[in-house]
Amino acid sequence: MDTHTITIDTGGTRGTFDLTGEVTAFVAGKGDGLVSVFVPHATAGIAIIETGAGSDADLMDVIDAILPRRDDRYRHRHGSEGHGADHLLPALVSPSVTIPVIDGRPALGTWQSLLLVDPNADNPSRTVRLSFIAG
Amino acid sequence: MDTHTITIDTGGTRGTFDLTGEVTAFVAGKGDGLVSVFVPHATAGIAIIETGAGSDADLMDVIDAILPRRDDRYRHRHGSEGHGADHLLPALVSPSVTIPVIDGRPALGTWQSLLLVDPNADNPSRTVRLSFIAG
Amino acid sequence: MDTHTITIDTGGTRGTFDLTGEVTAFVAGKGDGLVSVFVPHATAGIAIIETGAGSDADLMDVIDAILPRRDDRYRHRHGSEGHGADHLLPALVSPSVTIPVIDGRPALGTWQSLLLVDPNADNPSRTVRLSFIAG
Repeated sequence: MDTHTITIDTGGTRGTFDLTGEVTAFVAGKGDGLVSVFVPHATAGIAIIETGAGSDADLMDVIDAILPRRDDRYRHRHGSEGHGADHLLPALVSPSVTIPVIDGRPALGTWQSLLLVDPNADNPSRTVRLSFIAG
Repeated sequence: MDTHTITIDTGGTRGTFDLTGEVTAFVAGKGDGLVSVFVPHATAGIAIIETGAGSDADLMDVIDAILPRRDDRYRHRHGSEGHGADHLLPALVSPSVTIPVIDGRPALGTWQSLLLVDPNADNPSRTVRLSFIAG
Repeated sequence: MDTHTITIDTGGTRGTFDLTGEVTAFVAGKGDGLVSVFVPHATAGIAIIETGAGSDADLMDVIDAILPRRDDRYRHRHGSEGHGADHLLPALVSPSVTIPVIDGRPALGTWQSLLLVDPNADNPSRTVRLSFIAG
């Protein structure tokens, strides 16, 4: 299996980080198969949504509405305020997604981008593992 | 990789659309492996739930509760009322799911159906990509 | 494809059940590839989160906040109180996840555990299918 990790510089900022270019470069020339995009962190996930019209920022608002950042409601109270919420994100926005690859290109639709979703400002960078299985 | 797209006629109606028959037909005779079901649209997802007892309609209600369709709360304001909410759906109901295939049949449980979830009434039809990797 | 099912004794208790050991044992010695973890039930899902600091119990609280267990709000009213909510869980916490395997080990991060999420107390045990595709 062709697999390696990339490092995404999040600058310790909460938000989404576009991985589409990295995934596209990784599968270039590889033919047909499946690409697995996997985040080996417990407070981040992967989403496939549109960018450029505000939905990426809207997503962070919705996450905060679903997972309020008041620590008094969570048993998990390590880390910064809201870290209990961060630890629930991957149950709803999975850290693992698999995408078909056709002729060396991810089969994303015109308006789909592949985003790292990181609500946790405590880390300056994140690791993402890309793996390709030929089909 | 054996891959092709199917077109689902949604009639421009918000709701869920059962893909179980299409996926079952696609993997028939293919032996063991994984089938990827991928929607190349930015306002739709795939869910594996029971149908026939009301849960598919309940799901649309829950989606509207989690993602309220009042545009004044979203930065994304293109399209019809509520389209900002549509664009957040795929972060919570992923457009990509992978299912094991055993002896040419999807290994779904008795009560599981594979549904396209489309909250967006602006499209009369949707494309879904099915891909099979032999194992 | 190397595939088999395991049985998880939930004791008819709502909650999360750690599958990390079972998945690690399943892929041991198998080299590189992808492991599919799939629950063939309509009221359970798979989450990858941290355990040991309370987030697993927090997750059950969040699920009950997102999917309130008052039956009068669901069309699906079979089974025990709240069963209508149980049937919506897999739309948000998918019953299917795929994880990269490197040199016979799941490529999970230090703080990631793989959990069966079962909000439904009506079943004393659950089946989970593990499948490995070599890459």
